[in-house]
Amino acid sequence: MRTYQALLEVFLEYLKKEDLVQKPSSLYEPFDYIMHLGGKRMRPVLCLMGYQLFSDDDKLPFNIAMAIEVFHNFSLVHDDVMDEAPLRRGKTTVHQKYNINTAILSGDVMLVKAYEYLCTTDDKYLPKIMKVFTQTAIEVCEGQQYDMDFEERSDVQIEEYLKMIELKTSVLVGAALQMGAIAAGASDDEALHLYNFGKNIGIAFQLQDDVLDTFGEAEKFGKKVGGDIVQNKKTILILKALEKANDAQKLELNNLMNDKNLNENEKIVSVRALLNDLEIRQDTQLLMDRYYDEAFESLGKIDRSNEAKKPLVDIAKMLITREH
Amino acid sequence: MRTYQALLEVFLEYLKKEDLVQKPSSLYEPFDYIMHLGGKRMRPVLCLMGYQLFSDDDKLPFNIAMAIEVFHNFSLVHDDVMDEAPLRRGKTTVHQKYNINTAILSGDVMLVKAYEYLCTTDDKYLPKIMKVFTQTAIEVCEGQQYDMDFEERSDVQIEEYLKMIELKTSVLVGAALQMGAIAAGASDDEALHLYNFGKNIGIAFQLQDDVLDTFGEAEKFGKKVGGDIVQNKKTILILKALEKANDAQKLELNNLMNDKNLNENEKIVSVRALLNDLEIRQDTQLLMDRYYDEAFESLGKIDRSNEAKKPLVDIAKMLITREH
Repeated sequence: MRTYQALLEVFLEYLKKEDLVQKPSSLYEPFDYIMHLGGKRMRPVLCLMGYQLFSDDDKLPFNIAMAIEVFHNFSLVHDDVMDEAPLRRGKTTVHQKYNINTAILSGDVMLVKAYEYLCTTDDKYLPKIMKVFTQTAIEVCEGQQYDMDFEERSDVQIEEYLKMIELKTSVLVGAALQMGAIAAGASDDEALHLYNFGKNIGIAFQLQDDVLDTFGEAEKFGKKVGGDIVQNKKTILILKALEKANDAQKLELNNLMNDKNLNENEKIVSVRALLNDLEIRQDTQLLMDRYYDEAFESLGKIDRSNEAKKPLVDIAKMLITREH
Repeated sequence: MRTYQALLEVFLEYLKKEDLVQKPSSLYEPFDYIMHLGGKRMRPVLCLMGYQLFSDDDKLPFNIAMAIEVFHNFSLVHDDVMDEAPLRRGKTTVHQKYNINTAILSGDVMLVKAYEYLCTTDDKYLPKIMKVFTQTAIEVCEGQQYDMDFEERSDVQIEEYLKMIELKTSVLVGAALQMGAIAAGASDDEALHLYNFGKNIGIAFQLQDDVLDTFGEAEKFGKKVGGDIVQNKKTILILKALEKANDAQKLELNNLMNDKNLNENEKIVSVRALLNDLEIRQDTQLLMDRYYDEAFESLGKIDRSNEAKKPLVDIAKMLITREH
């Protein structure tokens, strides 16, 4: 069983060898640019892990892993246009480096290229994999739409927020594992258990993201802590706080969020103090634990040895306890 | 053998019954809007025609026809964003009616929805159809990129222009027929002949578009004649003229195109006069005839009766000799 790190290395080697710039170069250079901007490569590696859980051979499905990574990067390119984001992974976003039209059209071709990578799968597994991928891609678009809709709403419920992050982030994590499993010949049931494992880990991962953005240690986190508070993002922490707060606390939180004259650091310190008073961090940890437990329950249903599952257990633990 | 018109009617009936608005409605309403804005529905009907050329049964592949129409409309939504077009089929474009972010994301989900429709194809034919569709979708994106690139260039060659319209418009016409044929169990060779028939008809169709925009009769054409001239579009007519003109004529044409004080109608009349002097319309007709002949040569290679081919011959003639 190869570790996450070992599979990451073989994927990066595969990626390095892929020649992404075809003609017209104006269309494909942005594709090449975003694909080599770094990132954790979590999804493609999980796909390879899903494969090796069910197959001992060395025919790792790089094409499927690549399809997933290309799709993920397509979604980043278009999301950055919609969010008018200047930076991605600390570098200039595609629409800033080139222009908006290029970002739209290069993103489009990336989405189709993802399918082109999938198409090289053995015909035996291709229909199944196409269906999982397509269903997941639709859900990711829906998640992004909910995320945009929520920005305009002040009455977002916790259940809605959890559904949104499930669609926007977690289903692709689950599907990556599932598609790897399918390509290795796993049964539908087993592939689905693995999907559920990944999906639940993905939700917990995203909740941890919210926690780190507000409570992380700046040196370890790598980016400015408190960004979500400054931007008034309705994270799980804020939604929980609004649910739990008494009238006075609710008023205080709303005042802090709406006060345009407040200094950024003061705002962060005050909101964080309120969240601490309400013990929101502990509540969120309990919620994460629930998803974590559910993930491991699904993994337990898969009839493979503990040794075979070890790399998945390790990476799940790492993702949840990470401090950056 | 059903006629084009008969197949159009059954497709429209199918489309009417499809419920396109799912949740979140902010994502799917624009999809529903553009899909019901009208249009010729040429591509989906050609797909059904490709099917009935090789199969007598009544199981028309509506899902594939729909996938093609959804893909075509996705490309219109994104193209209109990139071109900042206010109108499509005489109605407000998606990004004008909603906003640019909605047009981007709804377009994205439409592209995936096209694949979702394809996914309901019998597994026996699905891999083949996926591959044709994906290859075609990539080429359509490339064609759109060339079209945008050409706007910035003054040295576009006729060969490049023909390649651009082939990619942007014609490959999808060919692929529509080809996918219908594949779904009916046609051999690879026969499906490819049908693709070549459609692709060449598609190119001739697009050249006819250029001719009509400049030389059409306003009442029959349905929109303002001379729009391409006013916008200085490098159509086949202008490119041919630049190739054929002597130095004085070239200077005159360039002056006409660059004169910002010239009245629109004067400009149209003068450019048209110059094109007439150079007999560009006749040259373009010869070029169209070449594609037309090539199309029919491909159709001739298919081992089906003339009666079976009749609807295709009829529609091809209609498309090429149309005056609107």
